[in-house]
Amino acid sequence: MTRYIGSDEMAALIRREGPEALLARLAASLRADFARWESFSLESRLASHAPQGVIELMPAADGDSFAFKYVNGHPGNTRAGKLTVAAFGVLAERATGYPVLLSEMTVLTALRTAATSALAASAMARPGSRTLALIGTGAQAEFQALAFKAVLGIAEIRLYDVDPRAMAKAWANLEGRGLSITCAGSVAEAVAGADIVTTATADKARATILTPDLIAPGQHLNAIGGDCPGKTELHADLVRAARTVVEYAPQTRIEGEIQQMPADFPVTELWQVLTGRAPGRASPQEITLFDSVGFALEDFSALRCIRDLAGPGPGLDLIPEVDDPKDLFGHVLARGAARLERAA
Amino acid sequence: MTRYIGSDEMAALIRREGPEALLARLAASLRADFARWESFSLESRLASHAPQGVIELMPAADGDSFAFKYVNGHPGNTRAGKLTVAAFGVLAERATGYPVLLSEMTVLTALRTAATSALAASAMARPGSRTLALIGTGAQAEFQALAFKAVLGIAEIRLYDVDPRAMAKAWANLEGRGLSITCAGSVAEAVAGADIVTTATADKARATILTPDLIAPGQHLNAIGGDCPGKTELHADLVRAARTVVEYAPQTRIEGEIQQMPADFPVTELWQVLTGRAPGRASPQEITLFDSVGFALEDFSALRCIRDLAGPGPGLDLIPEVDDPKDLFGHVLARGAARLERAA
Repeated sequence: MTRYIGSDEMAALIRREGPEALLARLAASLRADFARWESFSLESRLASHAPQGVIELMPAADGDSFAFKYVNGHPGNTRAGKLTVAAFGVLAERATGYPVLLSEMTVLTALRTAATSALAASAMARPGSRTLALIGTGAQAEFQALAFKAVLGIAEIRLYDVDPRAMAKAWANLEGRGLSITCAGSVAEAVAGADIVTTATADKARATILTPDLIAPGQHLNAIGGDCPGKTELHADLVRAARTVVEYAPQTRIEGEIQQMPADFPVTELWQVLTGRAPGRASPQEITLFDSVGFALEDFSALRCIRDLAGPGPGLDLIPEVDDPKDLFGHVLARGAARLERAA
Repeated sequence: MTRYIGSDEMAALIRREGPEALLARLAASLRADFARWESFSLESRLASHAPQGVIELMPAADGDSFAFKYVNGHPGNTRAGKLTVAAFGVLAERATGYPVLLSEMTVLTALRTAATSALAASAMARPGSRTLALIGTGAQAEFQALAFKAVLGIAEIRLYDVDPRAMAKAWANLEGRGLSITCAGSVAEAVAGADIVTTATADKARATILTPDLIAPGQHLNAIGGDCPGKTELHADLVRAARTVVEYAPQTRIEGEIQQMPADFPVTELWQVLTGRAPGRASPQEITLFDSVGFALEDFSALRCIRDLAGPGPGLDLIPEVDDPKDLFGHVLARGAARLERAA
């Protein structure tokens, strides 16, 4: 049987573990996997574009396991009460090619994105950072807040969104979780004096949510909303001024904030920072930027982490269990049927 | 909910419909989809190679639907009682990016391969063909026999395999299904006078199961075992002498029998034959060859066909159903949990 973790079980797991403990565990898993970066094969993703949106298959593999995530991006979906981004993923054994886990990844992607943000900030933000400004309080916001609390000890969150209802939603969801939360009246108010600024906005265009005049020396910027060609959140001068860390340079140059920069704009990859090969920050005054677009290794890591955490549970008969691999027909027409009749 | 068809339901469907009726229905679906070949986007497959085998993701899409198949190829799996080739697939709406069907495809691939073989033969074999030689009686054999019976009216089957137990297995499975079945003592005995010859052997090398001296004018060859680089079943001179039809030339030139031929070896694509743009056979004396490697369009067609046939049924909570797409956290931590508690 292929282990199955659906949306309901994922929700139950998060409640059982507590979101902060789960985010910290994911961050540890991500740290361990980024540290063995060179043991992964980095295959290019497969994208199928339609007028309404894109469907992608994102593969990643190490010597033992193969994983892929199916993920869509359909901005118009919310009009029909559907998610803009929905996802599921599969983990398989490379030795047999058999899938061992099928999991929902809509929620798991939000978790792994937040855990990756906090992991990068732990190596890039000033030590002792306590205040996070969250610009854009959509589906990702609360996960960001709790990941930064769990991994960095962030105690104060400042929310800002152009949609006051989205801001109120994030406030209500975060209330009572040991954070000091304020709703700001503008981006400027939210970011002034914050140690870390996360931008997680959904605008499908070249936006300039953050401009150089808003940002002070020493701040760490975590830009996760600009994640596809034509979609950015930061003014080019701000990117130019920052020490920039990315997940995987060839992908980020197409999808991230640095799509605004020349092809030789200097960047460091996160794994280099996490393994000590490159600094995440050179001085307390430096502005640092994690230009995050989401990477298949993170999905691989999240699937393995959640599999270990979930343990045994419901499974699917996705692959037939045959007595004789040469006798597929007999399995289906006789034995398979006999089993069905017993089960009925 | 995403409709789920597991191995047990697939077996039940085949028994409910009867394998021949299901194969005929699949052949009709394949005929309709090959006829609108130009409405499909043909994306390249994604392959992840390990020492023990390969894992592939095979995508195909038309204007409305996106499909992909996950399939492995691990020759050593049978030693552990596992299948060499196991598969599952997903059908999704391009308008929303949401998956609408997850189905087992180990058995469905065997069905669609056999239906495609029979479909091609219906346009390539001599009219009135009655005898099929089946060389290689592994997992695919019985499906081939019944597809040719259902689609072409084949009445006599001659089996041959180097493994007598595999031959006995196919004989036992096909007994009592309205076919005259004989087990041959050699390839030569099986193919002599047969109207159609299917080769479905598993040898992972350049093999010459069929040589020119074994084949008589007018016979139709259906070569399905040679389906990856370095794996062929037919002597090059036999390929050279035959009118050759393929699924998709760029893929078959790498994976099929024609990998033995120069890059400009003339081939016709099956959709051209099925739409009357090219003949499948020019004369009763011609030797015709369907050099089949399996193509993503066939999986797309099979998934849609089986979805329609299966109708409503079990579903999976693969994608969360949210009230407010911006409130993923609230869905997971509050409503999702409340729902779980109600269910418990």
